Amino acid sequence: MIRASIRASSRVSSRLLACKNCYVPVSQRITSALVSGSAVNNNIRFYSDKPQPKLTVENYPNIKRLESFKKLGKEDLDYFKTILSQQEILEANENEDLAFYNEDWMRKYRGQSKLVLRPKTTEQVSKILKYCNEQNLAVVPQGGNTGLVGGSVPVFDEIVLSLTQLNKIREFDEVSGILKCDAGVILEAADMFLAERGYIFPMDLGAKGSCHVGGIVATNAGGLRLLRYGSLHGTVLGLEVVLPNGEIVNSMNALRKDNTGYDLKQLFIGSEGTIGVVTGVSILCPIRPNAFNVSFLGVESYEAVQKVFVQAKKELGEILSAFEFMDLKSQNLTKIHLADMDHPLADDHPFYILIETSGSKKEHDDAKLEAFLESAMEDGLVVDGVVAQDETELKNLWQWREMIPESSQAGGGVYKYDVSLPLKDLYSLVDAANARLEEHGLLSIDDESKPVISAVGYGHVGDGNLHLNVAVRRYTKEVEKCLEPFVYEFVSSKNGSISAEHGLGFQKKNYIGYSKSEQEIKMIKQLKNLYDSNTILNPYKYV
Amino acid sequence: MIRASIRASSRVSSRLLACKNCYVPVSQRITSALVSGSAVNNNIRFYSDKPQPKLTVENYPNIKRLESFKKLGKEDLDYFKTILSQQEILEANENEDLAFYNEDWMRKYRGQSKLVLRPKTTEQVSKILKYCNEQNLAVVPQGGNTGLVGGSVPVFDEIVLSLTQLNKIREFDEVSGILKCDAGVILEAADMFLAERGYIFPMDLGAKGSCHVGGIVATNAGGLRLLRYGSLHGTVLGLEVVLPNGEIVNSMNALRKDNTGYDLKQLFIGSEGTIGVVTGVSILCPIRPNAFNVSFLGVESYEAVQKVFVQAKKELGEILSAFEFMDLKSQNLTKIHLADMDHPLADDHPFYILIETSGSKKEHDDAKLEAFLESAMEDGLVVDGVVAQDETELKNLWQWREMIPESSQAGGGVYKYDVSLPLKDLYSLVDAANARLEEHGLLSIDDESKPVISAVGYGHVGDGNLHLNVAVRRYTKEVEKCLEPFVYEFVSSKNGSISAEHGLGFQKKNYIGYSKSEQEIKMIKQLKNLYDSNTILNPYKYV
Repeated sequence: MIRASIRASSRVSSRLLACKNCYVPVSQRITSALVSGSAVNNNIRFYSDKPQPKLTVENYPNIKRLESFKKLGKEDLDYFKTILSQQEILEANENEDLAFYNEDWMRKYRGQSKLVLRPKTTEQVSKILKYCNEQNLAVVPQGGNTGLVGGSVPVFDEIVLSLTQLNKIREFDEVSGILKCDAGVILEAADMFLAERGYIFPMDLGAKGSCHVGGIVATNAGGLRLLRYGSLHGTVLGLEVVLPNGEIVNSMNALRKDNTGYDLKQLFIGSEGTIGVVTGVSILCPIRPNAFNVSFLGVESYEAVQKVFVQAKKELGEILSAFEFMDLKSQNLTKIHLADMDHPLADDHPFYILIETSGSKKEHDDAKLEAFLESAMEDGLVVDGVVAQDETELKNLWQWREMIPESSQAGGGVYKYDVSLPLKDLYSLVDAANARLEEHGLLSIDDESKPVISAVGYGHVGDGNLHLNVAVRRYTKEVEKCLEPFVYEFVSSKNGSISAEHGLGFQKKNYIGYSKSEQEIKMIKQLKNLYDSNTILNPYKYV
Repeated sequence: MIRASIRASSRVSSRLLACKNCYVPVSQRITSALVSGSAVNNNIRFYSDKPQPKLTVENYPNIKRLESFKKLGKEDLDYFKTILSQQEILEANENEDLAFYNEDWMRKYRGQSKLVLRPKTTEQVSKILKYCNEQNLAVVPQGGNTGLVGGSVPVFDEIVLSLTQLNKIREFDEVSGILKCDAGVILEAADMFLAERGYIFPMDLGAKGSCHVGGIVATNAGGLRLLRYGSLHGTVLGLEVVLPNGEIVNSMNALRKDNTGYDLKQLFIGSEGTIGVVTGVSILCPIRPNAFNVSFLGVESYEAVQKVFVQAKKELGEILSAFEFMDLKSQNLTKIHLADMDHPLADDHPFYILIETSGSKKEHDDAKLEAFLESAMEDGLVVDGVVAQDETELKNLWQWREMIPESSQAGGGVYKYDVSLPLKDLYSLVDAANARLEEHGLLSIDDESKPVISAVGYGHVGDGNLHLNVAVRRYTKEVEKCLEPFVYEFVSSKNGSISAEHGLGFQKKNYIGYSKSEQEIKMIKQLKNLYDSNTILNPYKYV
């Protein structure tokens, strides 16, 4: 019988601020206050254990500040003081280096902005942008600053336009489930607000305690509920956006259907703050499921993973809410890291699967899951498995998926790739990367002289989203050159995407050509030029 | 006990080619052959019972042909003959008036095109458009020509670019459920192809036997499965589009996630052929449910309709696939029309609800539905109801919803409005329209001297989509002036949309201002100008 209990472990006690696909370890982090009055106190924010990064311009000396941008002057500050209160303006001075706003979450990038503006209204955002556009002052829109590609921090001296204080829930319709809120509402706050009313925000990710609703829309974040509720392109019903010239585009309607004209809002979903600043979001929220199940399974091949996925879609149908896979290498690293915990399955298997269901009736979900697992085992597709019996076990099972990123970098460091690939090719990248690293004599699980420990693969099968983590003992140019552009070329050859959900930002700006055709890049540039001809919005990034 | 059987009726025997929200009665219609070799024979197509319409230019004498467009010459035909075979070119001559391509489905509009091009490849489409753009020849892209707003037929002498012969399924991934096909594949053919593989097309509508996959994408059709599977903006993963200048934009990837650059394909979803011609579609298809239930309920108020909707979302959760409401007036008209059938409920009720569930396990769905209905009746929300016991009963229950459009026009004619409104305001338009018609002395259910019989309301509560049908004995200017722009102004005052799913086309081009702000219209025109500066694509329409 596959039903077995999982031991709870005290080992995994620290709070995880993790995107389930991209774990971001943070020793201490102050979650800003929820919904209202959530002014982040930049004196008490703590970062990851990493040391303060070098300035981005030091790491990337080839990138030059655009000469066309004006340098901030006293007259500019004087203007901003006419439209914003003192509390809405933060200037760099001897006591204040604005590090909170200049550095990204991972401490990989550091800008040199001297000014942070924190408007409380859309009209203020409009006035700020209109002025900056006229004066050629570069601006970086910033939400919760939890991005992973350096998209939300300045590169040089761009003004930071923080949406933190634009943070009110505007309206919720309990019949339709349509939520309207300011861009700066924290995702967790929105979800808690909805939970009290029996609804759920249609996406979730580990940084929910810090990231903003506007930020996830601007970056088209993927996260955990995509398999179930689809992408933000489907769930976002309307946006309020301020264009670089200060014009406000208001499509904050509460309609599921509106077939009058091009769907303009779609352009801003995933535009990463390069053509407009999202200030308001209208989104359709589903009823909160009240039953959750998690099962952890062992299978013998990647082909079996795919077969189990098809079977799960058929038998679990409408209640399937996550289908994650992990290879043995990823679990071996995690076993070292979670040394005090027993792995859910006693024996090794080439691949593991985590299945989550969520539905409206527990006994029905249990019956479906049990029937599915029995048939999958009878068919020989699944060779071993467990089902969580309570909330604690459910969380513990998720640990073996969630702790892979931290485990991957525990040996010294990690090269991370977040890619989309057609499902049949999803795992081939991991095999190819391992083969290549071996071929170059860089890989050994126990020979300390080799830089690479292991290249492991895991991800959201349901979304075709693979995470390739190359665990290393140390960062070396040799490893980097072995992996890049190899990984991007491989993904491109399979018509995949070099960024499944993290976006382009600063990090991947130059690699867009691996995912998009020349024609598409031309059109992307046309749109950038159409809306932001002075390129004041989030320069040096995206495209 | 609410479970009761519904008598099957022989009265409703004719095949319904109906969009469930907008029924289009057609006495005979030849569905073109499926998937391949589906060249529509324009000599055997039959239309609605209505007489051939006047030319659009006769009905709308104020609209003038754009002088900038070249008139078709022999040299143009000569060119087309170099890139297309004889079978791919249809010229008007004494035996061929091209009526199939010049007239819309409803026989409301009639153009005067002398040339229809029916390419078989994307490259041919590209060459055609490049040439037309260079020569300033106006073009109307045409799919199955089942639109309801005159968007797919010429107004003057535009060349018709029919996608009928671009009709191959390109690829299907049985693991991910991603279908790639040509634009000209008929929706029903795509769905049948998917059904054989256990999948379902994520949208459905009555015209499925004729409409094209490319056409539903280009018009962002809504249809029946929106409540369950969401809009095409979420399910379409990639498009192949030919721009007016002949450039091919290929984003036909098979990825659920791709965060590299603006999501260009979204612009073409719902663009109604005004900025590009969709030639290929990549779409995510869900597993086909194998259990369906339909229930028909009587409630006492519109407030109760809303409460039952919330309750249904909570208790039926993931299996709820349709939630339709109808007012008593609509059922009274339908009773006259379906005189040989007994209404599902013996007594009159101010409002009726049709609920459909679809899921992966019949017994679970039955149990959920039964529990929901019992609690809704105990709470006094639902006062009477029936559940279909078999496929025939299920179809019969749907009749009382589907036959409303035909019943509405059976007395002489009907003014139809397809609008989106915030849910709480959804029905208020029907009350307002009735009050206004009464006030103007135009309305009487039995006084034959009054032009209006009844203004009835029904629609997709789940989508906030109301259909207001004003049943009339005869069309009069007085009624039209009483209703327009009144209806549009009312919808606009509630921040609704004047076109929920039918689009703008020719019919609503001039009314976009009721749903979109000046700022949005400006941006829509900017995009039109960006991609089609010569305005050769689908002129006189949309914006």
